[in-house]
Amino acid sequence: MTTLDAQAVTIENGLWARRQAVNRDAALPHGFRMLETAGNLENLRIAAGRSSARYRGPVFMDSDVYKWLEAAAWEMGRAPSEWLRSTSEATIDLVAAAQGVDGYINSYYTVAEPGKRWTDFAHGHELYCAGHLIQAAVAFRRATGDDRLLTIAQRFADYLHALFGPGRRVATPGHPEIEMALVELYRETGERRHLDLASFFLEHRGRGWLGPGRYNSSASFQDRVPMRDATTVEGHAVRALYLTTGATDVYLETGEAALLTALNRQWHDLVTGKLYLTGGVGGRHLSEAFGQPYELPNDLAYCETCGAIASVMWSWRMLLATGESRFGDLVERTLYNAVLSGASLGGDRYFYVNPLASNGEPEHLSRGGCIRKEWHLVACCPPNVMRQLATFGHYVATRDAVGLQIHQYAPARIVADLGPGPAMTLRMETAYPWEGRVRIAVEQAPTTSRTLSLRVPGWCTAATARVNGKPTAPPSKGYLRIERAWQHGDVVELDLPMEPRLTEAHPGIESTRGCVAIERGPLVYCLEQADHPDASIADLEIDTEAPLESSWVSGRLEGVTVVRGSGWAVDTAPWKDRLYRPVGRAAPAARRRTALTAIPYYAWANRGPGAMRVWIPRGAGGGASRPSGDSAP
Amino acid sequence: MTTLDAQAVTIENGLWARRQAVNRDAALPHGFRMLETAGNLENLRIAAGRSSARYRGPVFMDSDVYKWLEAAAWEMGRAPSEWLRSTSEATIDLVAAAQGVDGYINSYYTVAEPGKRWTDFAHGHELYCAGHLIQAAVAFRRATGDDRLLTIAQRFADYLHALFGPGRRVATPGHPEIEMALVELYRETGERRHLDLASFFLEHRGRGWLGPGRYNSSASFQDRVPMRDATTVEGHAVRALYLTTGATDVYLETGEAALLTALNRQWHDLVTGKLYLTGGVGGRHLSEAFGQPYELPNDLAYCETCGAIASVMWSWRMLLATGESRFGDLVERTLYNAVLSGASLGGDRYFYVNPLASNGEPEHLSRGGCIRKEWHLVACCPPNVMRQLATFGHYVATRDAVGLQIHQYAPARIVADLGPGPAMTLRMETAYPWEGRVRIAVEQAPTTSRTLSLRVPGWCTAATARVNGKPTAPPSKGYLRIERAWQHGDVVELDLPMEPRLTEAHPGIESTRGCVAIERGPLVYCLEQADHPDASIADLEIDTEAPLESSWVSGRLEGVTVVRGSGWAVDTAPWKDRLYRPVGRAAPAARRRTALTAIPYYAWANRGPGAMRVWIPRGAGGGASRPSGDSAP
Repeated sequence: MTTLDAQAVTIENGLWARRQAVNRDAALPHGFRMLETAGNLENLRIAAGRSSARYRGPVFMDSDVYKWLEAAAWEMGRAPSEWLRSTSEATIDLVAAAQGVDGYINSYYTVAEPGKRWTDFAHGHELYCAGHLIQAAVAFRRATGDDRLLTIAQRFADYLHALFGPGRRVATPGHPEIEMALVELYRETGERRHLDLASFFLEHRGRGWLGPGRYNSSASFQDRVPMRDATTVEGHAVRALYLTTGATDVYLETGEAALLTALNRQWHDLVTGKLYLTGGVGGRHLSEAFGQPYELPNDLAYCETCGAIASVMWSWRMLLATGESRFGDLVERTLYNAVLSGASLGGDRYFYVNPLASNGEPEHLSRGGCIRKEWHLVACCPPNVMRQLATFGHYVATRDAVGLQIHQYAPARIVADLGPGPAMTLRMETAYPWEGRVRIAVEQAPTTSRTLSLRVPGWCTAATARVNGKPTAPPSKGYLRIERAWQHGDVVELDLPMEPRLTEAHPGIESTRGCVAIERGPLVYCLEQADHPDASIADLEIDTEAPLESSWVSGRLEGVTVVRGSGWAVDTAPWKDRLYRPVGRAAPAARRRTALTAIPYYAWANRGPGAMRVWIPRGAGGGASRPSGDSAP
Repeated sequence: MTTLDAQAVTIENGLWARRQAVNRDAALPHGFRMLETAGNLENLRIAAGRSSARYRGPVFMDSDVYKWLEAAAWEMGRAPSEWLRSTSEATIDLVAAAQGVDGYINSYYTVAEPGKRWTDFAHGHELYCAGHLIQAAVAFRRATGDDRLLTIAQRFADYLHALFGPGRRVATPGHPEIEMALVELYRETGERRHLDLASFFLEHRGRGWLGPGRYNSSASFQDRVPMRDATTVEGHAVRALYLTTGATDVYLETGEAALLTALNRQWHDLVTGKLYLTGGVGGRHLSEAFGQPYELPNDLAYCETCGAIASVMWSWRMLLATGESRFGDLVERTLYNAVLSGASLGGDRYFYVNPLASNGEPEHLSRGGCIRKEWHLVACCPPNVMRQLATFGHYVATRDAVGLQIHQYAPARIVADLGPGPAMTLRMETAYPWEGRVRIAVEQAPTTSRTLSLRVPGWCTAATARVNGKPTAPPSKGYLRIERAWQHGDVVELDLPMEPRLTEAHPGIESTRGCVAIERGPLVYCLEQADHPDASIADLEIDTEAPLESSWVSGRLEGVTVVRGSGWAVDTAPWKDRLYRPVGRAAPAARRRTALTAIPYYAWANRGPGAMRVWIPRGAGGGASRPSGDSAP
């Protein structure tokens, strides 16, 4: 499978169109103000000799500017914007002015640590910033045709080639990013040397070159074992998955089987031991790291927004590499839950940490802070969300030798050249993720027979499809495949029955013992305090034998399908002033019936501070009495 | 209540005598070697001008030497030792040589950062090291009569008085310790200025003077609110409880009610939201801090050994301040579990982190590393355990105006001058903590009537006592009180029935949901892999309706009472390769009956790496089916 052109998919309506509109109209302007407030732009001005201020912020401040530029580029690719054009052009001017005569750009090392370039690969983030510059440059070219930033990035790349590579300096970065950027630069320019340099950086990992720091082990830098020997995802979660993303990009261009084998092992390790239900990754606050298998606390979950984005980037490339629907499943789960939760509905507030439970306290390093901030001291997440939202369309469909594959469902127009003849042009209409019916109308088609493949999400066990009213063959290996000489007026109707469902977790996970979660379609649900004024979220139990009902509520949280169930509010008064007590000495806990109202996880924390939980204890009489797996809703 | 003399209680046999013998014969010699290996002694030699090596280790290296000296002093107080005498004298020589002409001693600031004294109160640990020097000096005086180290410490204290105090420099230390040390110096010397300086340091807390650091908030330094306004224990757990310990010491000398009120509030916050069943404190790895209420993960527990020791020191002083048995209860719980677990049975391996569950992986920052290390880069815990073990006898008894109170039970001889007439001399015989019967024989007594008070541990609901065969009045407010004109030959028999019991935890604690713990007497039990060769500890459930039986096993772990129960090993094969699944779709989990063998928590990790858990899921049919509190064993 290969990607479609950047403009091949247009999101026309629904949840993602709304999120993209907010991204464009609120998040990008807000983000640009924050880049000014936090000093990112001023740092570049100092580097350009236009300011005499002092450098502010951590070493990787430039990267936030580049990610903002990348998001702006994709948004301009969706539709012109005079403000985005003029603002990004002025910013590119600034980047150009900050570039040294040798091609190097990095405001921190130019301003704050002159003469110290390339002295701290573990923490310096120089190659990380370079990577984001290259990605932004490629985005400008692809989305707008403007290659001014690409010229700047290529000069920087030339500098890197002069410095690093076989026969020159050995290096590998503490924070991966350059790898995927160089592969993209190779794809954009056709210059093989960029792919080779990406491979070079990968080859020098896992040989202890970065060395353990005072607070970091080799594992935390993904420098413990060589790439092809890796069996686990470990250490800093964002770094780990940026690395696997870059490695998958290299695989996509080289086809080296040993690399894909290692990447498949690592992905298996992720999804069988280190993945939150939301798609969130990186459970540990300490070192922002993956924990050991089953180490997935809810309130103490780290789940950095950038980790979820990294996971989407990686699984997308694994999907391209293998065509296996499970990778599309994880892209979907992660986008709808762990990524969307990173930003407020208004687009101007951001979570860095995305816990699966919160006691409603706003503290950041806590059992789930519940207030998104307007920006962060380390502000990697906000502009990362911006570029992710702007590119949702890129994840919708792919093509291969025999046809077109649709992986994500949204109201969209898709145009893909499957040759010969006219480009395949489809209009997808759906209320997804709120309803599971998808109507795909063919507006134009190639002249020969082509296969349209529709991903059947792993959560759906009863998918059916009809072509012009006639049932198709059942799905196989995660896809409904329809080969046909398509014609204008053909209509495919896909039905993905979307009932609310209860999910349980591996008994090895301490935090979910005795609990279930509510899901519906691709969405993970949660209980939030705002919907339960008469009980504390901490005291709620669910009756897993009571029915779950879903209904659309247009006035809540910009429109969501809520799921209603029944449970109990447990009286914890007998526990007042004590943490532990002998079993059997106290009277049974009193409890009262109460209605439960679950909202999509992504929408929590948009109504002021309050408690939240994804995993809900099973109330007695609701299945908790039986061995795991023995209870049916 | 006031303390007895340092030599008033001699532990003669049993668990604590064994631990003290190991402390003396193995831990102290091992520790001294480690102080040489790690560089602590060499740092002092450099400061003394006897070495040209480079400073090694963190800034507080001197404090480990002082804690070792303190432990050595108490051990010499218990019994002479030529090796301890000559070794500690040589070490005191070294400390003396490292002291500046102005009285200042600190090898780090003398060697590594000359000219930088008192420039970093938040992190510099100068007052912390000074405090440990003073405490060691007081210990030498009290235990051995030797006041050479006290002279050194007093010169340092003079220097501190010249620098800090009303009208001089304002300061408060990032890591408390100086406060309790100065109060002890006041007690030892009678010089009021030492108490005043301790109060001065306390007064300047909570006023933001330390300032938030890059990674630390004011709360993490206990500098958020003034002492008397404190309502919670927060931030770095060891610092927090060293501070409350010092503040309680100040209260004990000043009697200021507002201070005790605040300390009582903080203690209440500790025991109702932030205390592990083992007595461990400080749940968070990140910043070594107290979490929010109910944030008590098992495998991710931090529970630094020093935190448990700090908790013992604090509750001991709260007991002195109030005479309330609940403080003696927590001293007991913490000593027998969270403190003892810090050292190996052999005395030469140490935990820094004391988790309540481990998956058997040896990784340190993990779901419970399971290998004690011979020493640590930050080696505060090992010598802290040494001084704690050496002083167990100090926690056994107190006296007040009307008599003697016994708080901890162990085979011991107690001599306390309760005047008039001969000193009260008691011989306590017991197999505690393995059995609950305690026989106290009066060998000598004062000439007037005195009250002997025996703490009835909170875990015991059926305590009885007899004097010369005749039942006493029942306990009241946690003590059995016996007033009597005691005579040689009187015998008190205390019976604290000690059946294994099941304990459950507050439903707000995520990590213990659906679980119970086994306790017996003061001991918390755990399941360890070594006793369960046929099942994975992670897969075990307990049948809470099956009987628990205890039996002494002399050949295991230097002799322990094990508790045997029944439960199941759950077949988790259906979960292979998946973390989440729909409720009700899978068949009931297969499981097989299996015997459970629990060992005292303190003794875990002495038989090689292996999994461990304190909290055990209730198996179905074993009470999990009923509302909390509804199941009886």
